[in-house]
Amino acid sequence: MENHKAAAAAVAYRLLNQTKHKSNKILHQRRLIPNSTQLNPSSSTSGFTQASVPLNQFVASYRWDLRKSSLIHTHHRKFGSVASTIVERNPNFSTINHDDLIYFDKILGAKKVIQDPEELQTANTDWMHKYKGSSKLMLQPENTTELSQILDYCNSRRLAVVPQGGNTGLVGGSVPVFDEIIINTRRMNSVISFDQVSGVLVCEAGCILENLISFLDKKGFIMPLDLGAKGSCQIGGNISTNAGGLRLVRYGSLHGTVLGLEVVLANGSVIDMLGTLRKDNTGYDLKHLFIGSEGSLGIITKVSILTPPKLSSVNIAFLACEDYISCQKLLFQAKRRLGEILSAFEFLDSQAMNLVLHHLDGVRNPLPSSIYNFYVLIETTGSNESNDKATLEAFLLHAMENGLVSDGALAQDFSQASSFWHIREGIPEALQKAGAVYKYDLSLPVEKMYDLVEEMRTRLGAAANVVGYGHLGDGNLHLNVSARQYDDAILAQIEPFVYEWTSQHRGSISAEHGLGLMKAEKIYYSKSSETVSTTYGFSQEIVGP
Amino acid sequence: MENHKAAAAAVAYRLLNQTKHKSNKILHQRRLIPNSTQLNPSSSTSGFTQASVPLNQFVASYRWDLRKSSLIHTHHRKFGSVASTIVERNPNFSTINHDDLIYFDKILGAKKVIQDPEELQTANTDWMHKYKGSSKLMLQPENTTELSQILDYCNSRRLAVVPQGGNTGLVGGSVPVFDEIIINTRRMNSVISFDQVSGVLVCEAGCILENLISFLDKKGFIMPLDLGAKGSCQIGGNISTNAGGLRLVRYGSLHGTVLGLEVVLANGSVIDMLGTLRKDNTGYDLKHLFIGSEGSLGIITKVSILTPPKLSSVNIAFLACEDYISCQKLLFQAKRRLGEILSAFEFLDSQAMNLVLHHLDGVRNPLPSSIYNFYVLIETTGSNESNDKATLEAFLLHAMENGLVSDGALAQDFSQASSFWHIREGIPEALQKAGAVYKYDLSLPVEKMYDLVEEMRTRLGAAANVVGYGHLGDGNLHLNVSARQYDDAILAQIEPFVYEWTSQHRGSISAEHGLGLMKAEKIYYSKSSETVSTTYGFSQEIVGP
Repeated sequence: MENHKAAAAAVAYRLLNQTKHKSNKILHQRRLIPNSTQLNPSSSTSGFTQASVPLNQFVASYRWDLRKSSLIHTHHRKFGSVASTIVERNPNFSTINHDDLIYFDKILGAKKVIQDPEELQTANTDWMHKYKGSSKLMLQPENTTELSQILDYCNSRRLAVVPQGGNTGLVGGSVPVFDEIIINTRRMNSVISFDQVSGVLVCEAGCILENLISFLDKKGFIMPLDLGAKGSCQIGGNISTNAGGLRLVRYGSLHGTVLGLEVVLANGSVIDMLGTLRKDNTGYDLKHLFIGSEGSLGIITKVSILTPPKLSSVNIAFLACEDYISCQKLLFQAKRRLGEILSAFEFLDSQAMNLVLHHLDGVRNPLPSSIYNFYVLIETTGSNESNDKATLEAFLLHAMENGLVSDGALAQDFSQASSFWHIREGIPEALQKAGAVYKYDLSLPVEKMYDLVEEMRTRLGAAANVVGYGHLGDGNLHLNVSARQYDDAILAQIEPFVYEWTSQHRGSISAEHGLGLMKAEKIYYSKSSETVSTTYGFSQEIVGP
Repeated sequence: MENHKAAAAAVAYRLLNQTKHKSNKILHQRRLIPNSTQLNPSSSTSGFTQASVPLNQFVASYRWDLRKSSLIHTHHRKFGSVASTIVERNPNFSTINHDDLIYFDKILGAKKVIQDPEELQTANTDWMHKYKGSSKLMLQPENTTELSQILDYCNSRRLAVVPQGGNTGLVGGSVPVFDEIIINTRRMNSVISFDQVSGVLVCEAGCILENLISFLDKKGFIMPLDLGAKGSCQIGGNISTNAGGLRLVRYGSLHGTVLGLEVVLANGSVIDMLGTLRKDNTGYDLKHLFIGSEGSLGIITKVSILTPPKLSSVNIAFLACEDYISCQKLLFQAKRRLGEILSAFEFLDSQAMNLVLHHLDGVRNPLPSSIYNFYVLIETTGSNESNDKATLEAFLLHAMENGLVSDGALAQDFSQASSFWHIREGIPEALQKAGAVYKYDLSLPVEKMYDLVEEMRTRLGAAANVVGYGHLGDGNLHLNVSARQYDDAILAQIEPFVYEWTSQHRGSISAEHGLGLMKAEKIYYSKSSETVSTTYGFSQEIVGP
C-alpha cells in the first residue's frame, strides 16, 4: 500500500508537471499508421473493410459443401496451417467464358473490367497473405445500376462472385476462395449529401473511411467509428462486417448509427432502405440483416449514417497497471467518474508493447522507466477543455491513490497523442513483422478475458509468443499467437481449444472481425442451432435456393 | 434585436437569481403521471407497450385479406371514424372450443386462464378506447416453456393469437381485432441478472419499465429508454415496438442498446439469442428483426439490455421561443454547445400548452407572463454538477443574446424538474380528456416538421384543434388533431393527406408508435415495394405459409 502511494505521488507529479508546462490541446485526428499500404498491401483495390463471405448461391452451396462434403469431389484446397478447413468448389457454378467478358466490357467499359495478372494477384490475396484466391476477373462498377447489371447477369449465368472493398479483413472473407469474380466497390466513392443540422451523412459504399473522416472534420463532425485500417477500408465493408473499432465504447455499434442502406441482392434487384430518419417504425427494419452479414445477402451500395458533432476537447492518457485486476477496476472507475466524456478504453499487455517497440520504427515507450505488465490507453472527448482535463486528472489521481495505476502520462500535444495511439494501433503491423500470427477476435466477460491469454501461454510454453490486447471497454480481446512460422502443431494447441473456451464462457468467437472463411463453420460455438437454422431460412429467402 | 436583448437580460436575471437562491440539485427520477392507471385504464393487464400485430399465420392471412378482401366475406368490422379500414376475419382460423380450455387449464393452471368478462373487456380495449376486440380468452403464461406450449398448441389448432404487454400502444396493435386469444406477458416479470461492471441487465419481457428503472436506480444505473407510459408498459413491448421516447437523443435506439433476446416463434420453438456481449459478429444478427416487428414474428420472452451509468448531475430548462425557426436554431446550438451532456430536447406548441393547463390538475405554466408560440424542454445529464450547470447557463445566455429564447426557467429542485416534465409528458392525457383525438406519430426533416402542423390547421379551420409537440431532437413530431367527437368529415381532411405529405418529404408515417392495425396497410407511404416484398418473404420464412 505504501508503495502504491509513493508511485501514485510520483505519477501525480509527472502529470501535474506536464500540465503546467505544456499546452494541453490535443487535436482530434490521430496520426495514421505511417504508410497505410503497409497495413494493406492490396489497398490499391480498396473496398470492403473486413470479411465478406462470397455472395449469391455460392453461399448456399458453400454451406452445402460443408455439410455434404463427401458428395462432391471436384477440386479442393487445403489451408494448411492457416485453417484446417477443406472447402470444395461447387461444380454447379460456371466458369467465365469469352461471351461473359464481352458482356462485361459492353456494360462497364474496358477500364472497369480487370484481367491484369498483377492487379488480380493483389486482389486475390488478403492483407495477411493467408488467404489466396485464383480469380481471373475483377469488376469495378461505378454505380448501383452497373452493380445490379453485373449481379443479374452472374446470377443467370451461375457465376460465383465475391464482394470486395478495402480488402483489409482478417478472416479471409474479402478475397475469392476459388475463381469467383471479384466485385470491387472502389469506384463508388462519392459523398451524396450531408445535413449540417441532423449530422446525417449519405454516401456511396466505396468511400474510404479516412476520407469520410476528413470530409466531416471540415464540417465539424466525426465518424462514429474509427479503426486502424481507416486509410484503406471502405464504409460499405465496415458496415457489411459490422466493424467495431476504437469508438464503439462511446458511440455504440453500427446497428445504432446506420440509418439507412441501399443494397443490391444476388439477383440484381435493388433494395432502397436509404432512409435518413433517426426514427422509423414502419415494419421490419431489414437493413439490420445486412449489417454484419459479410456480403452474403447482398452488396451494400449506399449508406446513410448518423455522425456525432466533433467536440473540441480530446485528452489521452497512457497508463501502466501492475495486474489485470487493476485494469478491470480502472475500467469500472472510468465508466463512473469519466462518465459521458469517456471515448476509448484500450489495453495491451507487455508482450504487445515489446513487439511494437521492437518492430515499428520510431516508437518509444511513453513510460520508459520499466516494462509494466499492462498498459491502458484512455481517451476522453468532450466540449469543455479545462473541465475535461480537470476531470481526467482527478480520475487519474484517484486511481493512483488507490493503487490501480503504477505510472502514467497525459498527452500534451497532438504529436504525443498520436504517438500514444500509434502504439495501440500499430500492434497488428508489429505482429505481422514478427512472423506467423494466429489471430483471434473474441468477446468475453471482462473479468474472464485475460484468463484465456494466460491459459494459452501455459499450453504453448516456449513454442510461441502469446499476445493480448484490445478494446477492454467493450469486452473485446484480440488474442494473437505469434510464431516463427505457421506450424500445425501450434495450431492444434490453439484450436479448437480457443473456441471451446470462449463458448464455455458464453463469449463470441468473433467480436468484430466477422466469420469469413476462417470461422464460417465455427458459428455453432457462438450461436444456437435454432438461431442458425432460422438464419439459414432467411438467407434462402433472400438469395434463393 | 433590441427586444431580444431586453428579453434575454430579463431571463438571464431570472436564471441567475434562481441559481443563487435555490439548490440546483435535481434528482434523476421524474415525478410520474399521478395515477398511471389514468394513462392506461387497462394497466391491470399489463404487457407489451404499444402496438403488436397479431401473431402467427394470422399475419399472413390478415395481409392476404387486405390484398384480396373481395374474396372473403365472413364477418367484418368497420372502424368508423377511427380508421376507414375494413378488415375481415380469416375463416381458416378456428374458434375456441371446450377441449382447448381444458388443455390450457392443464398446462397453465386455472388462474392463468382468464375468462372473466370484466378482465377481458379491459384486455380487449386499447388505452384510447378506439380499438376493441372480442376475445373470449386471455392466457397469462409464467415462463418461456408455458408460452412455447401455448403457441405450439395454437399453431396446431389454427387458433389466432395476439401478444399483449402493458396495452399502452396507440395504433391498435396490442388488442385483438376479432376473437384472437390474448397472450399477456405480465406474469413473466423477473430480473434474471445484472452485471455491475458491464451494466448489462437481463430480465423477463413482462417487467414494467418503471420497475426496471427503480431496480437500476439502486444499482447506480438507468434504463436507456424512458417514456410517459413507463408505469404500465413492459420492456418486451417496448422492444417489440422499438419504443423511442425521451432519451433516444442521448442513448440512441434499442437497436443499439438491446444486446440479446429470447423469443418464441409462432410454432412454439424457442430461439435463444440472449447474448450479453457488447460485440458479437458471428452471422446474421437476427434479434434486430424482432425489435420493432410488433409481435408479428414471435413473442419476446427475455431481454438483455445495456444500461448506462446513472450520472449525478441532471439539469432541466423550460424555455419559450417566438417561432419555430428559433426552436430549430436552438436545437442546432444545443447539439454544439451542450454536446455530450444533452439528454433531451422536447418541444410543444402553445396549443399543447393550453391543453395541459386546462385539462390536467395542478399544472401551472413555468413561464406565466404570457403564452408563447413554442416551448422547449432541454435536459442535460452529466457527471459534474457545477460544470454542467455552468455549461447550460452559458448556453442559455448565448441563446437569449441571440434572440432564440424569449423566456426561460431552470428547474431548481426535484419538484420543479418533475413539474416541467409533467407538462411535456401530460400532453397525451390532456388530449384524451379534451375529447376525440386523431394521433399521428411522424418522422420528418426537422426544418419541414412544423409546416405540416400549419398546413393541417389551414385545412381544418375551426373544425378541430391541431396540436404539435414531440421529440424535436430526433425529428419526431406528434401531430394530434383534437375534436369534440370523431367525425368522418374531419378524418377525410386529415387522411390520406397526412400520409402523402409525409411521404413526399421522405418522412416516416410511424416514427416510434409502430404500424399496428391503424397503419398496417399504409406501409407503402414509407417503405419501397421491394423492401416490403422482401420483408414479406422473411415473415413467411419464420411464421410459415
